[in-house]
Amino acid sequence: MVNNPPVTAVQSIETEWLNLDYSYQGISDAELRDYAKKKLPANFDALKQQLMTGEFENKTEQRTVTHVLNRGIHNVVKAANGKNRFVEIVRLLRSGNWLGATGKPITDVVNIGVGGSDLGPMMGAFALREFADDYSLHTLNTHFVSSMDGGQLYAVLPIIDPETTLFIIASKSFSTIDTLANVRTVLEWIKPTLTRNQWLDHHVIGVSANNQAMMEFGIPPSQQLSFADSVGGRFSMWSAIGLPIALTIGSNQFGKMLEGAQAMDQHFATTKDVTKNIPVLLALLGIYNREERGINNLAILPYDGRLRYLPSYMQQLDMESNGKQATHDNQPLHKPTGPIIWGGYGPNGQHAFFQHLHQGWDSFTADFIAVLHRAAPGFSHDVQRALREQQRLAVSNCLAHRKLMWEGYRATTADGQDDPRNTYTGQHPTNLLYVDELTPQSFGALIAAYEHKVFTQGVIWGINSFDQPGVEKGKNCAKDILAVIDGDKDNDFDASTDRIIRRM
Amino acid sequence: MVNNPPVTAVQSIETEWLNLDYSYQGISDAELRDYAKKKLPANFDALKQQLMTGEFENKTEQRTVTHVLNRGIHNVVKAANGKNRFVEIVRLLRSGNWLGATGKPITDVVNIGVGGSDLGPMMGAFALREFADDYSLHTLNTHFVSSMDGGQLYAVLPIIDPETTLFIIASKSFSTIDTLANVRTVLEWIKPTLTRNQWLDHHVIGVSANNQAMMEFGIPPSQQLSFADSVGGRFSMWSAIGLPIALTIGSNQFGKMLEGAQAMDQHFATTKDVTKNIPVLLALLGIYNREERGINNLAILPYDGRLRYLPSYMQQLDMESNGKQATHDNQPLHKPTGPIIWGGYGPNGQHAFFQHLHQGWDSFTADFIAVLHRAAPGFSHDVQRALREQQRLAVSNCLAHRKLMWEGYRATTADGQDDPRNTYTGQHPTNLLYVDELTPQSFGALIAAYEHKVFTQGVIWGINSFDQPGVEKGKNCAKDILAVIDGDKDNDFDASTDRIIRRM
Repeated sequence: MVNNPPVTAVQSIETEWLNLDYSYQGISDAELRDYAKKKLPANFDALKQQLMTGEFENKTEQRTVTHVLNRGIHNVVKAANGKNRFVEIVRLLRSGNWLGATGKPITDVVNIGVGGSDLGPMMGAFALREFADDYSLHTLNTHFVSSMDGGQLYAVLPIIDPETTLFIIASKSFSTIDTLANVRTVLEWIKPTLTRNQWLDHHVIGVSANNQAMMEFGIPPSQQLSFADSVGGRFSMWSAIGLPIALTIGSNQFGKMLEGAQAMDQHFATTKDVTKNIPVLLALLGIYNREERGINNLAILPYDGRLRYLPSYMQQLDMESNGKQATHDNQPLHKPTGPIIWGGYGPNGQHAFFQHLHQGWDSFTADFIAVLHRAAPGFSHDVQRALREQQRLAVSNCLAHRKLMWEGYRATTADGQDDPRNTYTGQHPTNLLYVDELTPQSFGALIAAYEHKVFTQGVIWGINSFDQPGVEKGKNCAKDILAVIDGDKDNDFDASTDRIIRRM
Repeated sequence: MVNNPPVTAVQSIETEWLNLDYSYQGISDAELRDYAKKKLPANFDALKQQLMTGEFENKTEQRTVTHVLNRGIHNVVKAANGKNRFVEIVRLLRSGNWLGATGKPITDVVNIGVGGSDLGPMMGAFALREFADDYSLHTLNTHFVSSMDGGQLYAVLPIIDPETTLFIIASKSFSTIDTLANVRTVLEWIKPTLTRNQWLDHHVIGVSANNQAMMEFGIPPSQQLSFADSVGGRFSMWSAIGLPIALTIGSNQFGKMLEGAQAMDQHFATTKDVTKNIPVLLALLGIYNREERGINNLAILPYDGRLRYLPSYMQQLDMESNGKQATHDNQPLHKPTGPIIWGGYGPNGQHAFFQHLHQGWDSFTADFIAVLHRAAPGFSHDVQRALREQQRLAVSNCLAHRKLMWEGYRATTADGQDDPRNTYTGQHPTNLLYVDELTPQSFGALIAAYEHKVFTQGVIWGINSFDQPGVEKGKNCAKDILAVIDGDKDNDFDASTDRIIRRM
């Protein structure tokens, strides 16, 4: 085993809001350009343009792909000029002027949604809360309930009050069973205090691509926010699904998040040199590590606690988009596509799974994400200084561990023998994505960069990154099993399943 | 590709608090017994006994391994009889009789700790909160701050009050930089309200194996809780480190968690037939999947939202224990040991990474964890009924997806051709760990089972599961980099690292 020598040439891309250092990938820019020629289809620029204009085809679902349009001038915020219902709802709720059925101001908002209706809003609301437009107006507590069982709801209900709580029911189809199950329990919970109609008229906002279903559920039209069917759930935080983010930071700051994403769209669409294009390079490096080095997993390692939900978000964005083996024309692929995405907040990982990363058997690749500075508004000067020290501490740990994972360290004992116990494997290729400050803009740029990485990989592999056929069969099978558990049906599945059902 | 046929024979183990169904592993009991003969060392029973009596050697750290003793009669709760300081602290805080320096009762507790001082307490406090001894006494809000940067602390500080908040400083060594960095920021934050001494005398509890350091920091002896040096951080939730769990549910219920773990200790220690021993079987199946099937990862998939922190907990427990390549006598292993642990709350995964599990390229193995029933105390009859429906819904989804992951489904088009888009790979071996209800006892049994699985695998691979040499070098390198960032030193690392430092 030989250590990698310290890198002597920096390979990096700097853009307005987001930077990428890929010096620890062990691939030269010349090699990358060759690899791009081999991998990128001839019509890649045209496909990128289609994505930008909302004309890229999601063939299996017979629609186009339009999440990028949500960033532009027709987006939910800017189409507003005060008339947009999204902006009005945000203003009413954040100013304490939205009153519940009994006349009390709403103090708590519970977002009930799962998958794309949960991961993006939750991540964004947590990451950006310090950028709230006017901190003094921000009287709302925001809660997120996604789990199909009551394992989250049961912890939220005791700390909220039906009279002062508003529920966002967020579901693209408005038929997601996880979400409706939580809503059913909420309906039982409000019963002693409010009628169903009082609740619907004053305590509910629906966010969906299915207006018909919101109507049938009884949500007043002025409390319905919709988004286009052509916006995929995992690409929807830029649409009305992002409401919890806007409720946390205000519509203006929400617009800045869109602005950052839009800057990344422009960078992606217009940068021809692949070694200067962040999403294209992320895609190519990912495929290189997957196909040429045989690495089946990517650890997402944010080094800023505000980005703690990023790994879960990326699990959906990447694995639901590219965890597939069928081509556009439904031929089997028989080769690796998107990797397993895992990870966690980096410094906590240092006290947990980094032992394995440094000294375990497995190959992996990782994306480190660092925030170099922080302003920490809203705190006293002394607390700000302390928080900035903490930020520098986190960055230094980020730099140290990525260095060690690349270079490795071969230890020897006092008598010159190999010392496996103190040896670090190294040779693990990683990226460093970094921003000067975590702001709505840089956050938007980061997420958009990952979206376009996933898009580019899907294009290269020839798969449709915008459907999710693999979620159907389990859903149906679960329905059948539930019918037997509930005693509505008599059916045999297999010896193991039947035994658990009988025990229940 | 051929589907696996539905299993016809159930393979399962039932114990007092925890059950394992391993019917979907595709290995017969006879094969497992043979495999055990091949893998388990001749002195395995003796080693298990050593673990039970606290005599198992952690050679590289020159101590024994004693976390199992924390479950027994000498444990933190039962040694009490009201005199134990742990029990007294829990009673004072839960009853509102612990007053801050200005005479106000403590309403909020913030646990500052990382790794073993965070993951177990956080998981347990969240999972078991509905078992609080007397719900009416439970006036405490508990917060967890682990991240080295201020990314968690900054969100907690605005919602707590220095006069009514108590901080648990939890660190085995009492020198963990992540924890001390958060404490430094807290000290700046209390300054306008309290003196350092007021804070130390009324607002701090130290939990550590290093009493000397707690003393030097200025924590009064009556507010120091210690645990043995021979209890590893990732095995320490049974010790005083578990204080946040006891603050949530009371000492009596905390004792029941220990009782459940102890029942698992007995099961593990005394069950000779490997096909009847849950931890041994988990270990053998894990090694079989790793070595014979070449699967490098294990997804932990709890189907109860209360167990949402289990995957992160397991990342530390397993990857920090067995992510190693050095034997006891420091020889290189050159073969796979502990796998990559990842996963997440199952039903949410169905809307995210399950697409990849059902239709992606990669091999994986998974542990499904299900809770069959729930009591949901503290809610109205109607809400309880709704929560129980949600529980059944979650279990039916758990059964459906594990079935599909094992059996797979080969789809064909209308004209009899292969239909890759609607085909499910299957052939993925999984376990189902299930309990009738999630209680302190069944929770304790589940975690203890995993501890003993990790122990058994470490014994089979001949590695020390109780040290963590791979955490050292990154720590030192980070210190060097921080000194340069802070301008105290001038040093070159490599081109990439130097560039980021200069940018800061």
